[in-house]
Amino acid sequence: MIVVLRPGATDEQIEQVKQRLEQRGYGVHVSRGVARTILGAIGALDQEKELVAESLEALPFVERVVPILKPYKLVSSEAQPERSRISVGGVMVGGEQVVVMAGPCSVENREQIIACARAVKDAGARVLRGGAFKPRTSPYDFQGLGEEGLQILAAARQETGLPIVTEVRDVRQVALVGQYADLLQTGARNMHNFDLLKELGQSHKPVLLKRGFAATVEEWLKAAEYVAASGNLQIILCERGIRTFETATRFTLDLSAVAVAQAETHLPVMVDPSHASGDARLVPSLALGAVATGADGLLVEVHPAPEQALSDGPQSLRPEAFAELMAQVRAVAQAIGRCL
Amino acid sequence: MIVVLRPGATDEQIEQVKQRLEQRGYGVHVSRGVARTILGAIGALDQEKELVAESLEALPFVERVVPILKPYKLVSSEAQPERSRISVGGVMVGGEQVVVMAGPCSVENREQIIACARAVKDAGARVLRGGAFKPRTSPYDFQGLGEEGLQILAAARQETGLPIVTEVRDVRQVALVGQYADLLQTGARNMHNFDLLKELGQSHKPVLLKRGFAATVEEWLKAAEYVAASGNLQIILCERGIRTFETATRFTLDLSAVAVAQAETHLPVMVDPSHASGDARLVPSLALGAVATGADGLLVEVHPAPEQALSDGPQSLRPEAFAELMAQVRAVAQAIGRCL
Amino acid sequence: MIVVLRPGATDEQIEQVKQRLEQRGYGVHVSRGVARTILGAIGALDQEKELVAESLEALPFVERVVPILKPYKLVSSEAQPERSRISVGGVMVGGEQVVVMAGPCSVENREQIIACARAVKDAGARVLRGGAFKPRTSPYDFQGLGEEGLQILAAARQETGLPIVTEVRDVRQVALVGQYADLLQTGARNMHNFDLLKELGQSHKPVLLKRGFAATVEEWLKAAEYVAASGNLQIILCERGIRTFETATRFTLDLSAVAVAQAETHLPVMVDPSHASGDARLVPSLALGAVATGADGLLVEVHPAPEQALSDGPQSLRPEAFAELMAQVRAVAQAIGRCL
Amino acid sequence: MIVVLRPGATDEQIEQVKQRLEQRGYGVHVSRGVARTILGAIGALDQEKELVAESLEALPFVERVVPILKPYKLVSSEAQPERSRISVGGVMVGGEQVVVMAGPCSVENREQIIACARAVKDAGARVLRGGAFKPRTSPYDFQGLGEEGLQILAAARQETGLPIVTEVRDVRQVALVGQYADLLQTGARNMHNFDLLKELGQSHKPVLLKRGFAATVEEWLKAAEYVAASGNLQIILCERGIRTFETATRFTLDLSAVAVAQAETHLPVMVDPSHASGDARLVPSLALGAVATGADGLLVEVHPAPEQALSDGPQSLRPEAFAELMAQVRAVAQAIGRCL
Repeated sequence: MIVVLRPGATDEQIEQVKQRLEQRGYGVHVSRGVARTILGAIGALDQEKELVAESLEALPFVERVVPILKPYKLVSSEAQPERSRISVGGVMVGGEQVVVMAGPCSVENREQIIACARAVKDAGARVLRGGAFKPRTSPYDFQGLGEEGLQILAAARQETGLPIVTEVRDVRQVALVGQYADLLQTGARNMHNFDLLKELGQSHKPVLLKRGFAATVEEWLKAAEYVAASGNLQIILCERGIRTFETATRFTLDLSAVAVAQAETHLPVMVDPSHASGDARLVPSLALGAVATGADGLLVEVHPAPEQALSDGPQSLRPEAFAELMAQVRAVAQAIGRCL
Repeated sequence: MIVVLRPGATDEQIEQVKQRLEQRGYGVHVSRGVARTILGAIGALDQEKELVAESLEALPFVERVVPILKPYKLVSSEAQPERSRISVGGVMVGGEQVVVMAGPCSVENREQIIACARAVKDAGARVLRGGAFKPRTSPYDFQGLGEEGLQILAAARQETGLPIVTEVRDVRQVALVGQYADLLQTGARNMHNFDLLKELGQSHKPVLLKRGFAATVEEWLKAAEYVAASGNLQIILCERGIRTFETATRFTLDLSAVAVAQAETHLPVMVDPSHASGDARLVPSLALGAVATGADGLLVEVHPAPEQALSDGPQSLRPEAFAELMAQVRAVAQAIGRCL
Repeated sequence: MIVVLRPGATDEQIEQVKQRLEQRGYGVHVSRGVARTILGAIGALDQEKELVAESLEALPFVERVVPILKPYKLVSSEAQPERSRISVGGVMVGGEQVVVMAGPCSVENREQIIACARAVKDAGARVLRGGAFKPRTSPYDFQGLGEEGLQILAAARQETGLPIVTEVRDVRQVALVGQYADLLQTGARNMHNFDLLKELGQSHKPVLLKRGFAATVEEWLKAAEYVAASGNLQIILCERGIRTFETATRFTLDLSAVAVAQAETHLPVMVDPSHASGDARLVPSLALGAVATGADGLLVEVHPAPEQALSDGPQSLRPEAFAELMAQVRAVAQAIGRCL
Repeated sequence: MIVVLRPGATDEQIEQVKQRLEQRGYGVHVSRGVARTILGAIGALDQEKELVAESLEALPFVERVVPILKPYKLVSSEAQPERSRISVGGVMVGGEQVVVMAGPCSVENREQIIACARAVKDAGARVLRGGAFKPRTSPYDFQGLGEEGLQILAAARQETGLPIVTEVRDVRQVALVGQYADLLQTGARNMHNFDLLKELGQSHKPVLLKRGFAATVEEWLKAAEYVAASGNLQIILCERGIRTFETATRFTLDLSAVAVAQAETHLPVMVDPSHASGDARLVPSLALGAVATGADGLLVEVHPAPEQALSDGPQSLRPEAFAELMAQVRAVAQAIGRCL
């Protein structure tokens, strides 16, 4: 790390910082410029780098501390240069194939899910999505079917052979959802729920880690590190839009983050154009854009009758629109040397 | 609600929207303009307004649906025009007195807390803060002392008489923390943890609900409604900075939100200048600004030796600086007709 | 527009709002709900809708005014459903072809530009870009060659046949730049420079209107309306990234805005992945994503030796990397039924 | 500056960076860590630091360049530790007195301005504000009276003795407005209009530099440096709200920025609560918060009949409300050791 001192720092103050760093095992070089003295600290095998940085920044004569290394390791592409491939019930995510996961926002009933599962499978989707536990911003909204929803998803898997992905909302649900799902999803609002991340890290199921809508890419990767440090490296990242000043769309889909996360980590990165836009009319354009940008997969909401959906109707594609989109996704995937 | 149809909507489409609304109990008026047809729907006692709005927006000939009423009720100033006063271990928040809650970020050991409690009490603080369960963005950071930390806080209360506020991070901790604390705090990263909000709603202790750093005021008040709808109306709101493009401060303190939340609800609203700025040098200015804006209280981090703190050192005031600040807080509170 | 009154509005107050609207020529319908009275106003041919809305919102008993129509007309897809095609020195933007405009950030000297023009033309670019007047955030940075730069661009056009696009930074330069350029570009920082927009509206040259980095899509389209209302409908929009909390990229490219702007207006929409990311390593992914999303063209920075560029080196592609990218752009364009 | 190389940088690459820096006059120290090699460069008297940093970042083996010094000098508190006091027609801004500038958004007619000037003077305002050239986001809105408006302002000054502040929107107006105004204001949308900044730098009148609503504090201070570097150090900064995701207020007033700007520069910093909130009901709270935070002055919109204003009615205070506010401002100013 680099420690920049305020103008006028005394020799004693410089020495104080130097000693603190040396006590933690750092090699230190002091550069005295005309306007500032800076200390470069290298080499410590220090798990608590952030604490050291914070404690130095609390000194009144320290202007700022600039970290040199990234705050994640296990998930970084430096730690593992070759890209990870994660198996979701036998479907490999992170390879040549662009994997599409599709289905309704909420599991509403058995007929809805099985019809939807067949439709998305016919169109080329490889994994079925559906929510049994719904995080809703209003206490008066539909909260999901709970375990009954999980059973319905399992029945749809039996019927169609599609593995299933569904959300875990609460630490107390990890074991239960893990019994049914092939891929455990954490929602954007839970990316900073560190207790949940730890529980997922102790699960044996792969994890779909959605980016928090106000999380930087660095924070997203630190959340992935939480899961990894708890023992589970089967992590798929998913960009789903960030909160900005723009109100024309519900969130702003940040496709740059896909490219950045793929450069920084060895993990697959998917995109959810449905939650990002909140508008079914925009989903196809964004889905194609995501695939061309290099996303390893898509998470798309499909509902047989969006105007009757119990949640997220405005952003759900009808099955016909989804089938049409999949034909275009296939063409774009091939244009960049991948397949569907 | 107001439903705006797309240009060229047919008579059948207009009728379809009208009937859907009438079935839910709304009175409907259709206005046909040159460019748009709009439907005004009033009067339904409908818990599921958001679902109705969503299902209409999923219709391809509906341009948008504009809600008229706010999505919160129990906490609104329309439901209860007089301001609420919440007792925190006997200290009333929301009245004439500006209540300052102060202490270290993390409980580190018994001596630290008791010394700190005495210092902040002498300076005029009414409640002691301290974290036993710390939500840390890196898995390698100090995570708090857990129940031992709660016991230390209780000892400091016994010693000084100050009620204590501490954070609940996980649904599984609500009962435990409730045994020790006088005020249960939820962190900014948990404002959208709906299961936690429900558990807090079933607690008998008052709740300090921090605004999520990417939450609009409306979403914050919906989170308060979650707690209220689960049975607990002892809620104190706390603004602690939002995430913006600005990097000179860790977050951007949004004092307008204090004024808006006080106008929209009957709940007291506090301000946390320490987490907002992340910089002890800025805390005094922001604390004074918050009081003059009308905040009902302050949450301030104080640590006897910030450069040795296990968390948040850079934003912690030394006891002497805190005492100096409190003298100014007193003067500003009096200038606007309040007291400390 | 819809006028929502505060709870408890009296009959006289309702009548006052009604009369004000009727005096401006609106037909008004009053709906009295239990919680709110709302007035729907339709039909006025009113250029000053925003003023009327503002003056009503200034009344203490009015809660808010909701506009129904969009604040732009001439550029809207309602006014002209078929998409516009704009000729840039004979190259048509807005049709089947995806038009790529490429070249260095700044014009540095004649050799640089002519070499660069040849390279980008060979790779498939249709228009040459280059800056003669540079808006720099630091007063100590290189400010551009001025008219000499324009002459060099004109020489490159003569040499290669490529039309040229260059930025106008100041109202006093419109006439001068108009003598040389085929397409007048306004920078993101000038999108709200209304005097400049008016001057461009009186020019006979087409205009490339970059989105302000803190402008909503609606504000961007209002800026286009400024140009159009001043007499010039030859407008090409260009998305170039918005400012958000994310710091991994210089700006956040908002590809949703491409789809929204194409739905709302009849104007072509291009994308600038170079300024959005600020990082040459990310440009290819974003360029492909933009084309698949449906952008009508790309604006790409190319420099023969980025490490010697006088501006924007880190985001400039070397000619070989640009040629490689163009092959992929061609494949993606074909995959969605367009050409290069 | 600190140059961080990518992992695996070769000796030749390290040498290449070292030589480039030494050629520019920097002293260079190379630190080879296990994971990264970093170069510290100090001491060069280099006007073109940003260009050097950019050209190094364009090298593929350079990960990033971290600047050590701030990109502004003349306005910095390092260059001049004592705070500047700026005379506006004899009223000193930046001293003990909190200076309030008040008046209507637009100059509408002589009677309005003179009545308003008298009212704000009686309440304690020291400077009269009013717009003659209005930057409006819609081409169909009222654009201001132009020179006639300036003449009316001058008449109000003669009548009341209040100096006047008014906006310059366009480089071509600087000379004209300078003949009438005592303080030349640049609007938030022009903070990045570098040609205008240069013209203001060549003026002999003091400049009120509003922060751009999407500008970081650092960019704001760089804009001030533009004015200063062109020869004019009579600069007053003005915070007026930034654009965030929050929609409850028009902009988010960033009072932290006041404290940061006062620490970083020697310039006075004012606050405009009217444009920040866009809502007269919030203006008093924010005005008091600004004064307690340490602002050197306020810019407040006052209009005798806001519901008839030709612009910004909803955010304008009536004269009586302004007088009431001023009594509170006086009390808060005294509480922190200042006066009105």
